[in-house]
Amino acid sequence: MAEGQRALIVSAHPEPTSFQAALRAAAVEELAAQGFAVQVSDLCAMDFKATLGPEDFNDPRDTTRLNVSLEQRHAWQQGTLAPDVAIELDHLLAADLLLLMFPLWWFGPPAILKGWIDRVFVSGAVYGRTAVFEKGRLQGKRALLAVSTGAPSQSYGPHALNGDMNDILMPLHRGVLGFTGMTVLPPYVAYHVPYVGPAGRAALLSSWRHHLRALEHLPALPMPRLSDHPDALGAGERAH
Amino acid sequence: MAEGQRALIVSAHPEPTSFQAALRAAAVEELAAQGFAVQVSDLCAMDFKATLGPEDFNDPRDTTRLNVSLEQRHAWQQGTLAPDVAIELDHLLAADLLLLMFPLWWFGPPAILKGWIDRVFVSGAVYGRTAVFEKGRLQGKRALLAVSTGAPSQSYGPHALNGDMNDILMPLHRGVLGFTGMTVLPPYVAYHVPYVGPAGRAALLSSWRHHLRALEHLPALPMPRLSDHPDALGAGERAH
Repeated sequence: MAEGQRALIVSAHPEPTSFQAALRAAAVEELAAQGFAVQVSDLCAMDFKATLGPEDFNDPRDTTRLNVSLEQRHAWQQGTLAPDVAIELDHLLAADLLLLMFPLWWFGPPAILKGWIDRVFVSGAVYGRTAVFEKGRLQGKRALLAVSTGAPSQSYGPHALNGDMNDILMPLHRGVLGFTGMTVLPPYVAYHVPYVGPAGRAALLSSWRHHLRALEHLPALPMPRLSDHPDALGAGERAH
Repeated sequence: MAEGQRALIVSAHPEPTSFQAALRAAAVEELAAQGFAVQVSDLCAMDFKATLGPEDFNDPRDTTRLNVSLEQRHAWQQGTLAPDVAIELDHLLAADLLLLMFPLWWFGPPAILKGWIDRVFVSGAVYGRTAVFEKGRLQGKRALLAVSTGAPSQSYGPHALNGDMNDILMPLHRGVLGFTGMTVLPPYVAYHVPYVGPAGRAALLSSWRHHLRALEHLPALPMPRLSDHPDALGAGERAH
């Protein structure tokens, strides 16, 4: 049981009656049954702003030129993050478990979810120049992707047309979740959703619930360790 | 020389004086010198809408429920695509060469560029259910990524902290460009940009110009072929 733990579900499907919405509802129910306090960010329903731009920084350290990571660090330290970013970052920092739920579009998350990452994974708050992977500031949290596809499972695999799903999801697993120190659990993938019919979708929902019930026993994906790569970060001096 | 050919540069950096802007200016110059007619879509300057939603379809086939690929196909066939999408799609379909230029954020493109792909790579226009990879509708076009990073080159590689850049870029190379039939040229990557100083950046600009001058001789990245995977697509019937 997960009494006292918090889960954040971030979902990104533009259709409120999509199968992703059914997956999300099942997750809310399963996680609550396990004792999690569940917070949902339904990005499309929220019309979450996807694009990071200078307007995100209303008290910039440099009014003449936008350096994203420096402005993020400054805004985080000064408490001047954009309000929608600050709210989501609070949810993220409070969470013990993060679920990112989305339809696979062009081998990646829809732009609105990528924008949630670009804007909410604030430099300084979730990582630092030498605070990555096992030193990342989100260490101790677990994360899990729940992805749906139009293509069937046989189009994914090491020798399949689209390549392996683990390779497709690597930028999120390693570049976002592992990079910030999170423990990354194996993804749940619902394949071929538009074609499998009601019985097929019921079976997918059932296997998703089983995936969530097995959370405590899912083996974490392997991640690199910064300590194994002492030269990876290069010189620390910005040379403008 | 490329007389009579068209190049489309799609760039996605929120700072107009960024190094990405310098890379873009160099590309405009080099490609024009080679005889290309060059079109630039500077997504941040255009404030390009990143998020695909129901408001993109003003004459939908189904007013009750958004199915993205079906609505894209319908809007494409009926000539009712959102005006900003239609303009970008015209540029894409007219182009012989596509350059996607962006800072690597979280192992991927900024959301505004992912959104350009989500919205402009319209089902029916650029691919179909059985029109992917060598059957994709963008066959005959060449494409190239120009990426900049904050981390140094030694953090990328098969055994490096962040993994191999080709693996990081795979979703774009294989899942977007190759998937729609384009010939994918090797990417140009400018590493460690904030730290290399003016001389370092001048060297990067010079190597980028050389990359573009060698366009005709760059070997295409290998892509899978649909014909080698006859079972990849599964049943064609949607089962609602």
